[in-house]
Amino acid sequence: MTVCIIGASMTTFGRRDAWIRELLAEAGGECLDTAGVAPDAIDHLLVSNMASGEFEGQTGVMNALAHDLGLVPAYAQRVDQTSASGGAGIHAAWQSIASGASDMTLLVGGEKMTHRGTPEATDVIASITHPVEYKHGLTLPSFAGLAARQYLHAYDAPRESLARVAVKNHANGVDNPHAQFRKEITIEEAMESPMVADPLRLYDFCPITDGSAALLFCSEEVAKQYTDEYVRVAGIAGATDTHVVHERGDPTTMGGVVESSRRAYERSGYGPEEVDCAELHDMFTILEFLQLEDLGFVEKGRAWEATEDGMTERDGDLPVNTSGGLKSKGHPLGASGVAQVYEIVHQLLGTAGARGVDADVGLACNVGGFGNCVTTTIVEAP
Amino acid sequence: MTVCIIGASMTTFGRRDAWIRELLAEAGGECLDTAGVAPDAIDHLLVSNMASGEFEGQTGVMNALAHDLGLVPAYAQRVDQTSASGGAGIHAAWQSIASGASDMTLLVGGEKMTHRGTPEATDVIASITHPVEYKHGLTLPSFAGLAARQYLHAYDAPRESLARVAVKNHANGVDNPHAQFRKEITIEEAMESPMVADPLRLYDFCPITDGSAALLFCSEEVAKQYTDEYVRVAGIAGATDTHVVHERGDPTTMGGVVESSRRAYERSGYGPEEVDCAELHDMFTILEFLQLEDLGFVEKGRAWEATEDGMTERDGDLPVNTSGGLKSKGHPLGASGVAQVYEIVHQLLGTAGARGVDADVGLACNVGGFGNCVTTTIVEAP
Repeated sequence: MTVCIIGASMTTFGRRDAWIRELLAEAGGECLDTAGVAPDAIDHLLVSNMASGEFEGQTGVMNALAHDLGLVPAYAQRVDQTSASGGAGIHAAWQSIASGASDMTLLVGGEKMTHRGTPEATDVIASITHPVEYKHGLTLPSFAGLAARQYLHAYDAPRESLARVAVKNHANGVDNPHAQFRKEITIEEAMESPMVADPLRLYDFCPITDGSAALLFCSEEVAKQYTDEYVRVAGIAGATDTHVVHERGDPTTMGGVVESSRRAYERSGYGPEEVDCAELHDMFTILEFLQLEDLGFVEKGRAWEATEDGMTERDGDLPVNTSGGLKSKGHPLGASGVAQVYEIVHQLLGTAGARGVDADVGLACNVGGFGNCVTTTIVEAP
Repeated sequence: MTVCIIGASMTTFGRRDAWIRELLAEAGGECLDTAGVAPDAIDHLLVSNMASGEFEGQTGVMNALAHDLGLVPAYAQRVDQTSASGGAGIHAAWQSIASGASDMTLLVGGEKMTHRGTPEATDVIASITHPVEYKHGLTLPSFAGLAARQYLHAYDAPRESLARVAVKNHANGVDNPHAQFRKEITIEEAMESPMVADPLRLYDFCPITDGSAALLFCSEEVAKQYTDEYVRVAGIAGATDTHVVHERGDPTTMGGVVESSRRAYERSGYGPEEVDCAELHDMFTILEFLQLEDLGFVEKGRAWEATEDGMTERDGDLPVNTSGGLKSKGHPLGASGVAQVYEIVHQLLGTAGARGVDADVGLACNVGGFGNCVTTTIVEAP
């Protein structure tokens, strides 16, 4: 069965004066409204969310949302795959339609984080790491610093090439009305921003964000009853890598990206050369390089050069993070993977406005932790 | 595609000196070992768990477990549906096999709770309720008290009939080596135990528990390559009810039980009269009555009489909670729904030892919150 997406929405990302239930209901309600689908057509509701209990002391948000959107008695479930919860939700939604368990599945991803402040919110995120590694100072940012240093050394890449990722994604975010930061930055500003985890500086990191995004899934047969404006999920897969990062051979390769994309390419029938645009998980600038390489878009060690040559710019051969990426759009954990595919949907349908590129096939890569689990989703225009 | 279960395991339930990762690995490893399935045959790992972050400050447990069981690069995801996370995990595992996304899915459910003490653990569970209702004193136990009072009044049922549920399930638990409480209790002890939420007393409630359980899923074609000792998932479905309980018309009917079982019966081709044994979610004794009725086993208002008449005893027409139920076996949130089907599997295969009954079709009903979301699973011998 071909699984299709017939609706996509997202809230404004940023510092939001709303609790998680309100954020989820905002994106979920808009998704149904714009798709013209009545609540009683939904039989499965999935909520991608990592930590509403830890961030807000509120659990069971999927049941609350079923109520708030008028979906009762639809089945509801929460999907957690840390910072890749959104991609995992898409994977679960695909399975729910393809298995015949559901005729119409609404996926809403969201997270409310900013009220806790950056240090405390970062500590919640760090609860995914092995407690022994954590005690020894291994957090996601510190590991990103290690990986970046190793990459720059191994492939003789200039530090400026990382700043280039941030500059590009900020420039794209200017045209995204939902983005947290709609401002351009310069290479100089990025290079002079405060040091966080040498060699990575503040502008190499995505922010803490509140926000939500939603997608609506059904079979192609059902899709056609509603609209001609839909896209197909051509292939999707996920894969883990070692939980303790000290067991990884090479910090500049992400096994979960390699393996999940291998499976997704195989299922879709597409290869990396057929992908027209991509949303990559640029939680840290270095991750955009690693994914460009591990997804097969460029050879190992060449992403920095391809980036400097403009390949990933909006007018390049493979526009990457036209949405602004996590870097400028923001990163509300459970929403991010859903929002990646929101962007791809609009690119494929030609409704991305000023950020629009010419694309028939798009790819989204959503990374949990430091690649502890990764999903790759390939979407095609019909 | 027919989805089968070729492996089932559970840890001892109770107060365990082990953290969540160890509990999950214990059941998961035993499941693979007893089924004779190598770790590299697993391509999806699902972890049913409500709140490892809230209980232990550890998130990302599915990725840790993939590592601990040697399953990397298998895809991993956490499934949360509050106290019905186990049933939701079975639902997700069914979808992962039936959709073709996975050839072999390992589901491990677990929770570590006792180290937090009953009041604090209960507070984590109460985070599923609406904060306004919670402030007004509506917790799961208090709502159970309201529902019990209404039930006894509406159907002219004696208070002793509720105690009978506890006495039966404790008697069953004596023969379950994994149960938390392996001791018989009397009607008198139950009736004289401390008052909790009038008319419900201490022995009407399940305990706080640590533990884990696992199931292994694949297609029937794959199952036959491993063993003749497998069972089939004949039908499974889930459904929500209102999140705020003040919106429910009748507190003695659980809409999620009615609707999820209606769908599961329809998918399986079985009706309630063809079910030979059942594991019901007796978090509170009153819930066993409500489920007996809402699942269609007896008419509305007759469960108390059927229980007094011995229908649900091990030698009755419909043995219920031969495992001891949540009441005596214990209730580690994420594990409970998985452990329900562990019991059914052993009943259908004739390997339940002293608790064995004659059964070809079994049903498990797993209740999230106070019926906020419910899954019904029907399993058949091949």
